[in-house]
Amino acid sequence: MAIRQGRYTLALPSRPAITGCAAVVGKKEGEGPLADEFDSVSQDDSLGESSFEKAESAMQRDAVTRALNKAGETPENVDMVFAGDLLNQCIGTSFGLRGMDMPFAGLYGACSTMSLSLALSAVMTDTGAAGTCIASTSSHFCSAERQYRLPLEYGGQRTPTSQWTATAAGAAVIKGGGTGPRITAAIFGKIQDLGIKDANNMGAAMAPAAASTIADFLKDTASAPTDYDMILTGDLGTVGSSLLAELLIKEENIDISGVHSDCGVMLYDIPSQDVHAGGSGCGCSAAVLCSYIMRRIREKQLKRVLFIGTGALLSPTSTLQGESIPAIAHGVLLEADA
Amino acid sequence: MAIRQGRYTLALPSRPAITGCAAVVGKKEGEGPLADEFDSVSQDDSLGESSFEKAESAMQRDAVTRALNKAGETPENVDMVFAGDLLNQCIGTSFGLRGMDMPFAGLYGACSTMSLSLALSAVMTDTGAAGTCIASTSSHFCSAERQYRLPLEYGGQRTPTSQWTATAAGAAVIKGGGTGPRITAAIFGKIQDLGIKDANNMGAAMAPAAASTIADFLKDTASAPTDYDMILTGDLGTVGSSLLAELLIKEENIDISGVHSDCGVMLYDIPSQDVHAGGSGCGCSAAVLCSYIMRRIREKQLKRVLFIGTGALLSPTSTLQGESIPAIAHGVLLEADA
Repeated sequence: MAIRQGRYTLALPSRPAITGCAAVVGKKEGEGPLADEFDSVSQDDSLGESSFEKAESAMQRDAVTRALNKAGETPENVDMVFAGDLLNQCIGTSFGLRGMDMPFAGLYGACSTMSLSLALSAVMTDTGAAGTCIASTSSHFCSAERQYRLPLEYGGQRTPTSQWTATAAGAAVIKGGGTGPRITAAIFGKIQDLGIKDANNMGAAMAPAAASTIADFLKDTASAPTDYDMILTGDLGTVGSSLLAELLIKEENIDISGVHSDCGVMLYDIPSQDVHAGGSGCGCSAAVLCSYIMRRIREKQLKRVLFIGTGALLSPTSTLQGESIPAIAHGVLLEADA
Repeated sequence: MAIRQGRYTLALPSRPAITGCAAVVGKKEGEGPLADEFDSVSQDDSLGESSFEKAESAMQRDAVTRALNKAGETPENVDMVFAGDLLNQCIGTSFGLRGMDMPFAGLYGACSTMSLSLALSAVMTDTGAAGTCIASTSSHFCSAERQYRLPLEYGGQRTPTSQWTATAAGAAVIKGGGTGPRITAAIFGKIQDLGIKDANNMGAAMAPAAASTIADFLKDTASAPTDYDMILTGDLGTVGSSLLAELLIKEENIDISGVHSDCGVMLYDIPSQDVHAGGSGCGCSAAVLCSYIMRRIREKQLKRVLFIGTGALLSPTSTLQGESIPAIAHGVLLEADA
């Protein structure tokens, strides 16, 4: 069905279910506050592969395989996979899912990828265009550092506003008519760029995108922050989270302070794990969502969660060319099964 | 509606229309056999910008703006843009569409991007999830060469099987209930990898993906190649086109020889323009489709065109790590307005 509600939001009356999901993380993520929530914690970030890129692919394949198993599905039942990652040409995903023989749409949304893949999966299943979809993504600290910043061996200093790319993958199986946490609405964001040029301050670049999508969603649905148990952003970190709260108060008169959480703040114990402004990377929000959050929605501790994934759409080349950082945020409304 | 037909194909009973489209190309493309078909031919591949990446963004923005104008639409009417490109983190697209303030889903499908964006746009409008969508993509010879191969200044020799990345962008406006060429079916492909490792022979890597999607589509729809005026691949070039014909005959007993064309073969005069195996790049099939092909569908010289975009999902990193080349092909069935 997918009924347009207001200008930007799609209500999904068939309430597609997340029938299975899985989160697979690296060693550092497994030492954080959510350690007990994950399906698998690797003690070796190479996962026994010969490169970090191959390790990332293995991690995403593992997350998808576990999610399928938990949902009781096989690849032959999957009509569509929506997935992507941070690596150039999204090789974490294409090599990870190679050989699984499922129809595949590659996405690029940087750290907003999990929200984009969930939103597209939910719309496809709600409209009947697909029976079963998979949403998945991954990131790896070591593959991201050397691609975006510096070789690890260089030992570069990190700025206080920088975020730590999570070594993590998350995957969810979305099914029309299934049981599990429901996706009852979706919103696709618009590119926002307020001129931030510091590639070590992604939170500041992404906060305006999160603010735009949250404000649009609340307006479209005539709802207030207090109508949600949680408004969950991924991954603004501490700096971006403060800016988001400030932007929403000052520009939209919206106060999310009572219900806001951020996956980048939740994944690590920020003071002790030396991650500066918090976690980031496609896998950060995917892993937090597909473990801790989904379990609480299944157990009805959380009944309505507005998940807003945020992505910075820059590249090292655009930064070298003096460009500012465009960002985007997509969202899905997750509700506990009735 | 989007009714599943067979295992992989979606029939689109509301027949979404391409109400406007535009193709913008560079100098070399404007000297080829399709010179008179394009909306704009740039005489300077920098487009007056300070880098080739910025030129590519400008080209994609120009194609989208022209397509909107021809469709009589403004960005405020657009519910969704599906777009992507070849550049790392898809900056051709994110910087090109920045400031247009339209909901945006970033795609990565390499040279299959135009078919993926058209297929998703058509499904979204057919199901009523969106009223108006845009599908767009771009590529630029100079930004692609230095990213994927060598700096232009190096003057490297090209192998006989290599293809020439088109400097081109194409965009289409897709609307439920509009008039124009119709998208009456869509198919999303699966990743195929037969072990080709030569990054200078993309045609060989992509031919199995094209064969798989074409065979699936024909089986799902119980149709034969002769039921189409054209089966149009993009962009296999001469080497990949021969391999596709051979694969389909030997493995599927399907003979497409009477109806097959390829955007990579059509864009250039191959012997005289020194493009070796033909054109490639996201913009190649986008520009050929959004000019020459669409005009002939509008004028009913072509009534049924099965467009199969093909993409090689490798990166320079995966090649350096000794990996083979996964590829994918997505398709849409285009039909003349009744």
